[in-house]
Amino acid sequence: MINSERLFDRLQALGEIGKTEQGGVTRFSFTTEDRDAKRLVSTFMKEAGLEIREDNAGNLIGKMEGEDSLAPAVIIGSHIDTVKQGGKYDGALGVLAGIEVAQTICEQAIKLTNTLEIIAFADEEGSRFNFGMIGSRAIAGVLDKNELSRQDVDGISIEQAMREVGLDPDKIDEVKRSPTSIKHYLELHIEQGKVLEHHDVPVGIVSGIAGPLWKSIRIIGESGHAGATPMNMRKDPVIAFAELASKIELEVSKYPDTVATIGKVIVEPGGVNVIPKEVEFTIDLRSIDENLRNKIEAAITTYTEEICEKHELEFYMSTLQRIEPVPCSKGIQQAIKESSQAIDLKTIPLLSGAGHDAMQFKKVCPIGMIFVRSRDGISHNPAEFSSAADCADGANLLYQTVLRSAQ
Amino acid sequence: MINSERLFDRLQALGEIGKTEQGGVTRFSFTTEDRDAKRLVSTFMKEAGLEIREDNAGNLIGKMEGEDSLAPAVIIGSHIDTVKQGGKYDGALGVLAGIEVAQTICEQAIKLTNTLEIIAFADEEGSRFNFGMIGSRAIAGVLDKNELSRQDVDGISIEQAMREVGLDPDKIDEVKRSPTSIKHYLELHIEQGKVLEHHDVPVGIVSGIAGPLWKSIRIIGESGHAGATPMNMRKDPVIAFAELASKIELEVSKYPDTVATIGKVIVEPGGVNVIPKEVEFTIDLRSIDENLRNKIEAAITTYTEEICEKHELEFYMSTLQRIEPVPCSKGIQQAIKESSQAIDLKTIPLLSGAGHDAMQFKKVCPIGMIFVRSRDGISHNPAEFSSAADCADGANLLYQTVLRSAQ
Repeated sequence: MINSERLFDRLQALGEIGKTEQGGVTRFSFTTEDRDAKRLVSTFMKEAGLEIREDNAGNLIGKMEGEDSLAPAVIIGSHIDTVKQGGKYDGALGVLAGIEVAQTICEQAIKLTNTLEIIAFADEEGSRFNFGMIGSRAIAGVLDKNELSRQDVDGISIEQAMREVGLDPDKIDEVKRSPTSIKHYLELHIEQGKVLEHHDVPVGIVSGIAGPLWKSIRIIGESGHAGATPMNMRKDPVIAFAELASKIELEVSKYPDTVATIGKVIVEPGGVNVIPKEVEFTIDLRSIDENLRNKIEAAITTYTEEICEKHELEFYMSTLQRIEPVPCSKGIQQAIKESSQAIDLKTIPLLSGAGHDAMQFKKVCPIGMIFVRSRDGISHNPAEFSSAADCADGANLLYQTVLRSAQ
Repeated sequence: MINSERLFDRLQALGEIGKTEQGGVTRFSFTTEDRDAKRLVSTFMKEAGLEIREDNAGNLIGKMEGEDSLAPAVIIGSHIDTVKQGGKYDGALGVLAGIEVAQTICEQAIKLTNTLEIIAFADEEGSRFNFGMIGSRAIAGVLDKNELSRQDVDGISIEQAMREVGLDPDKIDEVKRSPTSIKHYLELHIEQGKVLEHHDVPVGIVSGIAGPLWKSIRIIGESGHAGATPMNMRKDPVIAFAELASKIELEVSKYPDTVATIGKVIVEPGGVNVIPKEVEFTIDLRSIDENLRNKIEAAITTYTEEICEKHELEFYMSTLQRIEPVPCSKGIQQAIKESSQAIDLKTIPLLSGAGHDAMQFKKVCPIGMIFVRSRDGISHNPAEFSSAADCADGANLLYQTVLRSAQ
């Protein structure tokens, strides 16, 4: 079993770096706080007996050589950068749990067949440059180098920021790993939702990362005086919006692992006694099954057409972003499941709504993810918390899974 | 028959006063433009053979003595002030049609039993002091004198503005008429809606003025990450709002002369990938039947309770304003109907959504209103228009109604 106290102590120690007066932790990529955090994590990696290096994307890599030097590596990754005034657990727990797993393997003098690498990826959050997962994209070979010209609020580009901390972005292509060199990718992360809490289980097995499809719909009717227009003479976009919102909710609720959110609704002109002319709203549609997501998208389009035709309204629909869902490997889900049973740990399968470094590996190797319960589902916030016991359960499950899959 | 050309010419002439460079007409109360307009209207009144005076509320009154000096008067009223950059027809048509009726009676040497008064009321629109129907309230005896301290944007109070144009607000109580002195009140006004246009009739008989009841409802749910919260774990106020909006539309559409408008909808926090925490919206509910309006209000409350309970949401409901509906006199509606048949004019009954000076007379005497078709339903706008033919139809109907009811 892993050393739960050591893991939790390291989490708290790492959480001291970048602590802000307003509460929470701010560790943006390629900053002093980021360097300090990497230095601390390096000492943990050393204690775990790992061989350490930093690649030219700024990824900190701790390696435990396997017995078979020709066998592909098992990678455990996550990140140690944070959002502005974020928490201590998002990302950090995954990196430190990986190190804890390696250290336990080392202490138990277990010899793995496959090489094990623990990676703290550079800039997952994207908080500094509005562009995240830089390190994992680089390793997975999907980083578009044009993105390195993106600038932070001070006008410093990613490339420049990298050079300032001694990295060489000209050599970033060399960071890329070949698919044959990686057996699979594992990541432990806090849930950032309430599903585990709701089901009263400490950890969950991620079935996939539901990439969001963002649609925007503008329904245009006819404004008019609230008192002078009978109901049957109205072209009221709010009524059409209401029907459509109910239809979307009904449609999406039919499927598990699928969610739709109408998060932004703007009604114009917005006077109490004025029939609105226009409603503009967004739909955030997520599923781990892209075909299903496409099917629901088509159904929403049909409903919109039907409802707008009925009310004699015009509409415009646009796609704001379309991110491919990434299903987790069924084999790894099974391996995690069996590992949980071996240590008598109750788990449930669940969906990842948020994106993670793991997604970048979708075309490189099978991926698997373990979620650890978040208190009140809170994340990206100083109040982010997972108990020491839950963190230990997650790390133990990761440990068992590595033992099962890397030897 | 009335002189349609004279009526339309006077309308255009009055529309020159207060004409703005940006288009439209701006004639606020107790201003130079208002004085100029009253001066012009006075000349029309003189041409009509009316005896003219201005009372201390600023109402311009043209009187035609009836044969029976003890009989109560018939009042025809409307206003000649406008909103900012308003049109030429709102209010003005009613006053000029009244004068046209009087002039025709005079020209035809018809002797009415009852005295006929044509009144251009002071400040109906309320554009200058955010408080309207000053003149009609004063005559009906329902003006709260405390309101005279209301100020315009330059800090000038109603009282002060009155004094500046030579009125004596200290004597405003004397303006009040006793219920026994008025037989009934008639008003012709542009529709400011599309109902007449929709039914292809030039004029309509108003069944009542539907006072608005304004409710505000706040539905409070639980915010959350759009990707990390399954549909069945959400407390999404937008879904509840959607159900409720559909229910309200369905409920209100059951009844004629009743409308509900959801004009203002604010969804917070309003992020594409954030389940909203709160929806705040308004309902403008109007009916000429106050009991029915109360019944619908109760039904909306029940629906809100049921829907919020189902979705485990909190809600707060408040009343922003509750204005009593004012039904028009059935007798006068009948008189107008018979008058229209006498001159072979097609009419329909319809509701007034907007408020008018007529409402102030609800406790004083029976009231009746005639609406004239508005092109595209546009009002309070430079594009406001009613054709010369429609204006003439309205004035002729008013003429016939006066002949029928005042002698």
